[in-house]
Amino acid sequence: MVKTDDKLNELKTRMQEVGDLNSAGAVLSWDQSTYMPAGGAPARGRQMAILGRIAQEKFIDPAVGKLLDDLQPYADSLPYDDDNAALIRATRRSYDKATKVPPAFLAEYYEHAAHAYQVWTEARPANDFKKVQPLLEKTLDMSRQLANFFPGYEHIADPLIDFADYGMKAASVRKVFSELREQLVPLVQTITAQAAADDSCLKQHFPEDKQLEFGRMVIQKFGYDFNRGRQDKTHHPFETKFSIGDVRITTRVKENDLGEALFSTTHESGHAMYEQGVDPSYEASPLDGGTSAGVHESQSRTWENIVSRSRPFWEHFYPELQKTFPKQLDKVSLDTFYRAINKVQRSLIRTDADEVTYNLHVMIRFELELQMLEGTLAIKDLPKAWHAAYKSDIGITAPSDVDGCLQDVHWFGGQIGGMFQGYTLGNILSAQFYAEALKAHPEIKKEIGQGKFETLHTWLKDNIYRYGSKYTAPELIERVTGRGLDIAPYIQYLRAKYGELYKL
Amino acid sequence: MVKTDDKLNELKTRMQEVGDLNSAGAVLSWDQSTYMPAGGAPARGRQMAILGRIAQEKFIDPAVGKLLDDLQPYADSLPYDDDNAALIRATRRSYDKATKVPPAFLAEYYEHAAHAYQVWTEARPANDFKKVQPLLEKTLDMSRQLANFFPGYEHIADPLIDFADYGMKAASVRKVFSELREQLVPLVQTITAQAAADDSCLKQHFPEDKQLEFGRMVIQKFGYDFNRGRQDKTHHPFETKFSIGDVRITTRVKENDLGEALFSTTHESGHAMYEQGVDPSYEASPLDGGTSAGVHESQSRTWENIVSRSRPFWEHFYPELQKTFPKQLDKVSLDTFYRAINKVQRSLIRTDADEVTYNLHVMIRFELELQMLEGTLAIKDLPKAWHAAYKSDIGITAPSDVDGCLQDVHWFGGQIGGMFQGYTLGNILSAQFYAEALKAHPEIKKEIGQGKFETLHTWLKDNIYRYGSKYTAPELIERVTGRGLDIAPYIQYLRAKYGELYKL
Repeated sequence: MVKTDDKLNELKTRMQEVGDLNSAGAVLSWDQSTYMPAGGAPARGRQMAILGRIAQEKFIDPAVGKLLDDLQPYADSLPYDDDNAALIRATRRSYDKATKVPPAFLAEYYEHAAHAYQVWTEARPANDFKKVQPLLEKTLDMSRQLANFFPGYEHIADPLIDFADYGMKAASVRKVFSELREQLVPLVQTITAQAAADDSCLKQHFPEDKQLEFGRMVIQKFGYDFNRGRQDKTHHPFETKFSIGDVRITTRVKENDLGEALFSTTHESGHAMYEQGVDPSYEASPLDGGTSAGVHESQSRTWENIVSRSRPFWEHFYPELQKTFPKQLDKVSLDTFYRAINKVQRSLIRTDADEVTYNLHVMIRFELELQMLEGTLAIKDLPKAWHAAYKSDIGITAPSDVDGCLQDVHWFGGQIGGMFQGYTLGNILSAQFYAEALKAHPEIKKEIGQGKFETLHTWLKDNIYRYGSKYTAPELIERVTGRGLDIAPYIQYLRAKYGELYKL
Repeated sequence: MVKTDDKLNELKTRMQEVGDLNSAGAVLSWDQSTYMPAGGAPARGRQMAILGRIAQEKFIDPAVGKLLDDLQPYADSLPYDDDNAALIRATRRSYDKATKVPPAFLAEYYEHAAHAYQVWTEARPANDFKKVQPLLEKTLDMSRQLANFFPGYEHIADPLIDFADYGMKAASVRKVFSELREQLVPLVQTITAQAAADDSCLKQHFPEDKQLEFGRMVIQKFGYDFNRGRQDKTHHPFETKFSIGDVRITTRVKENDLGEALFSTTHESGHAMYEQGVDPSYEASPLDGGTSAGVHESQSRTWENIVSRSRPFWEHFYPELQKTFPKQLDKVSLDTFYRAINKVQRSLIRTDADEVTYNLHVMIRFELELQMLEGTLAIKDLPKAWHAAYKSDIGITAPSDVDGCLQDVHWFGGQIGGMFQGYTLGNILSAQFYAEALKAHPEIKKEIGQGKFETLHTWLKDNIYRYGSKYTAPELIERVTGRGLDIAPYIQYLRAKYGELYKL
């Protein structure tokens, strides 16, 4: 037993070093996005690369494999729910994946990704798809190579999807998406047949400092802990974690669009509260982060959409918002404001899309990814295929590739495959989890209308946050809801909310 | 030759990795002082420790020693001034030092230092020397051990002084300090016999943002490059470098003391311009930073004291300062303001001391360090010895240890010995270098009076900054001034400036 303790401690120490090195890299990346002067860029690339390389070397060290082998009988002797069993299980899973990819490939992959990203940042404003096309072709080739380090798949996208959303495959995602689409398309048609909501009240001038202050007040009430986090401004909003005690978010403010900072703040606060809520004893271990892309997104969507785009929320907070912006909002009714922040429209940009059409944007990307990986869609034909998909699924066509296939960073950041399904899985799960929270605490709805969030936050912490990556996404969903992924609560949520809004 | 090239490249690559890891640690440390929420502290300590450890391991790798051995004949074949020769020379010097200290000792040393620092932050506000006494005793013991890894010294402080100010020893510093003291003590006596200057004009209310704006305007004119740096607020001002393209400074603002932010800003900008001015081809090599504590301090003092506390400087900038703070300064004459920012007084706190008395504070600390290391002063007697030294050398006694031996972090940050001499060496050198600049460009004085600094900045860059650590401090001083360290220009500078101010 002493020997086992020693080995377990050694495994934990090694994983803590890996975690700390990765966190150091995250600090450098955060600084790069927030405060770094332009002159710091070349060195910063090098500094982040070496941290990543050393963390990877330490993680795939054969000594880690040996420790895992030696500890397996001990893990098997423990109850499945034991934290040490979960630690060994999760480390084994990641280790087996990581050791399948040769370090030389990984180095080339990251270098190519950084280069492709750089070229995309220039090609996008220039609307020049041709400029990135050869790089994207290499990205596709390397994404296929990456998948092929994991032979035995049904669909070549499966290993890539599995990285982000463990347990999902192309086939299972396609099935869920097709069921969802059947419900969404008629809903979008019915709503967009009506006159569009007037959201001009959001497009007035709103001073930045007041916007930030209001957003911070809201997420502090949600339960985001500013003693263990902070908010800064960046070009694109994100959440990042340096430890369970330091989980930061960023936002982007548009002084002529009130929705931008506000909803990106509540969105990122959801990601951050998930990370802040992980059991502190998991600190700097493979269990210390959210368990999958989909589950992570479910937590951001819960606070962004289900809570902060709901009518009860604004029944409480709208008077306060009016007090903050009296000139702009004193003559705008709650009803007008509520309709404005939930305006449904056929649009071109995923990140600006409303709750109802959002998933159609995701599904288009997911399907295009699969086709590229399958080889049925060549990179050179991507812009045309993109426009065709938008025409057929959303009913509009982008005037250029800037608002078409050049809009999202994901593929240009180095990977095709597994990059998008998490967004829609997250939307589905947000409603599925929330329905369970309401079952346990029907008072949550009323409390939201009183600006109180402790019951909801505590339920999420007790049922989801605290577990970090102890359970895989499928395990967690089963534990929390008693069944697998299910679109019914999400459809029900959308029908109820938009049925009332559009009197369907 | 191909083989030599390979080895040289390998040495450079290894040193770049070490440099990049140390820079990553510096980013984490900067973040800790600027933006990190309180909850991030425990993990941050771990993260910085592992970065430091890996950088050290990579630096003392025997393969580095082998490369240096193999490259020695090549280095010997090069002219002394060749950059590669200097790189090999500087790396060899650091390598030989670093490999003499066992990693296990170093780990314990850093751990103790972090602990002692932590206890000091609590003991200082509580005026509780007894609380840190046992830790300081261990610090003294470890400082002696550290010195003893470098046997053959004349004085046990020599190796510790050599770390910071290569080429200096206890005896040589003592000699310089004693010569300087002979000149300073009567000067202080003469000045303080007169009525003290009235500095009440600096103690009005000055809004923070205006103070920061003014300071930034000034250092931008000096030549500090904000595209390769930035300024943030911290508890204690400092300069830090993440690459030659990213050299940051911090300041501390007191709204009731105009001098605080302004002069800490010009001070840190001097450190930072030195680092920004290093030859870009030295990036992430052992040559890429300032060459010694003393030379570094000389650059901060040049801009803080010689430039921004001079009359010509304020002849140009005072009208602008009055425009910035009209309510506070419209009725204050340039003469009153100039006397206020150069007020000489017997005081207790080193960091608040004026140019004339400052070095007395440093000399007291230097002498106490030597006595502690020699064993002629026990830690338990330090508070008494401190008060006695202040009484005899400065003429006043602190009411408590807070304003006595608990005031400076240095000893409590983990080392006794070599911590203070650089401040006074820097003051001496600032005048010695500046005299050379004036010899080459007598127009510099007039230009300062016109708010122009390019001639001075360019001269410093060409003669000091660009070389980074290519030359040791003694070599650099010899190159720039044609002789060794010399107090005469500094004494002359003080006599001229304060002679005029106090009509001596």
